[in-house]
Amino acid sequence: MSIYQKLTNLKITLPPVSTPAAAYVPFVVSESHIYLSGHIAKKEGQVWVGQLGTNMQTNEAKEAAHAVAIDLLGTLHAACTSVGKTLDDISQIVKVMSLVNSSPQFTEQHLVTNGCSELLSQLFGPKGAHARSAFGVAQLPMGACVEIELIARL
Amino acid sequence: MSIYQKLTNLKITLPPVSTPAAAYVPFVVSESHIYLSGHIAKKEGQVWVGQLGTNMQTNEAKEAAHAVAIDLLGTLHAACTSVGKTLDDISQIVKVMSLVNSSPQFTEQHLVTNGCSELLSQLFGPKGAHARSAFGVAQLPMGACVEIELIARL
Amino acid sequence: MSIYQKLTNLKITLPPVSTPAAAYVPFVVSESHIYLSGHIAKKEGQVWVGQLGTNMQTNEAKEAAHAVAIDLLGTLHAACTSVGKTLDDISQIVKVMSLVNSSPQFTEQHLVTNGCSELLSQLFGPKGAHARSAFGVAQLPMGACVEIELIARL
Repeated sequence: MSIYQKLTNLKITLPPVSTPAAAYVPFVVSESHIYLSGHIAKKEGQVWVGQLGTNMQTNEAKEAAHAVAIDLLGTLHAACTSVGKTLDDISQIVKVMSLVNSSPQFTEQHLVTNGCSELLSQLFGPKGAHARSAFGVAQLPMGACVEIELIARL
Repeated sequence: MSIYQKLTNLKITLPPVSTPAAAYVPFVVSESHIYLSGHIAKKEGQVWVGQLGTNMQTNEAKEAAHAVAIDLLGTLHAACTSVGKTLDDISQIVKVMSLVNSSPQFTEQHLVTNGCSELLSQLFGPKGAHARSAFGVAQLPMGACVEIELIARL
Repeated sequence: MSIYQKLTNLKITLPPVSTPAAAYVPFVVSESHIYLSGHIAKKEGQVWVGQLGTNMQTNEAKEAAHAVAIDLLGTLHAACTSVGKTLDDISQIVKVMSLVNSSPQFTEQHLVTNGCSELLSQLFGPKGAHARSAFGVAQLPMGACVEIELIARL
């Protein structure tokens, strides 16, 4: 089944690529690899603000990571399109780096990040099995609770 | 001398690949590059918990980084094996990213990370000379003191 | 116009590659990609110390990020030279990862990092349009205010 059909079945609509808040671009295609910029969590178009261990729980941040995954997929689709390909041409999700806005006490960054990783696995199957680092950062741009970057290969 | 012989001389036994705590995989081989997931420090099979500047000193964390390097090598060996190669086929350790669980006052992340970098240099010689970023994170999954990810090239 | 001519016009002199503070190297050329180690901010040869939200403002840190960009370019030039190339042979700045030493309250890491990104765009034009992640870290080696790593492609 096509990735797009799976997205439809999950009632997920890919967003257009969001404009970066600064002097960079959302993705770079370098030979066969696609590098996506860190995407911060958004909810209803606004920055999804929060800090784990301070004013947000693991479950909500996991939802935020799921939302970031959808935005990453929107950008990944645009990156594929830019070189005449589609998400079905992705041969591997290579690596995910997940930054969780954390107090010095919060230790469940891996559970938060599963909100992203599980969707990638669900959509891409074995091609979605990725290497990953997840860790707690002191803060994120505009107070976002989660930021995730991704490398994929065509 | 083979990498495996050097490991034997150093009395280092490579561990089996540890199971990730979440929905991802320990490594991805993408064309000629191997991407290893962030590996958290462990001691006697348990998470090596601690925060620099709070309840752990540089020397102990440097030992933890050395332990992470051994775990990374175990995973790198498995990654090589998965494509019919061995550690002796690694042509370069390309990059290390080291996350040190740090209070806002601790500034010796580079010394901590040397516990990993020095072992890589010792084993791989010039092929072990890697690019590196080391920095202090607010927290790590399960409270680990150090997490390190690595990119190598076959 | 050559990158070197643009640097001259901007009155920027590329520094020699600084010696890493630890057991690693400033760059690795891996096939067509160049991986630069995280470079910490320096001012007049000394570590540029500071923490955003504690004792440094966004504008000063943006200057520090601009200074890091110049140091990165010095190293990138050396990396190009090591394989018989020059900065004019760079076909793309692929990715920037920017670590901003931040209190748990500081949320302008993207504005700080623009100090680096804007110079790259100015010098390389479309080839300088890079993917990027910027985030707040708890601390950096030797107390530096900013550390940036970079991937480029020949």
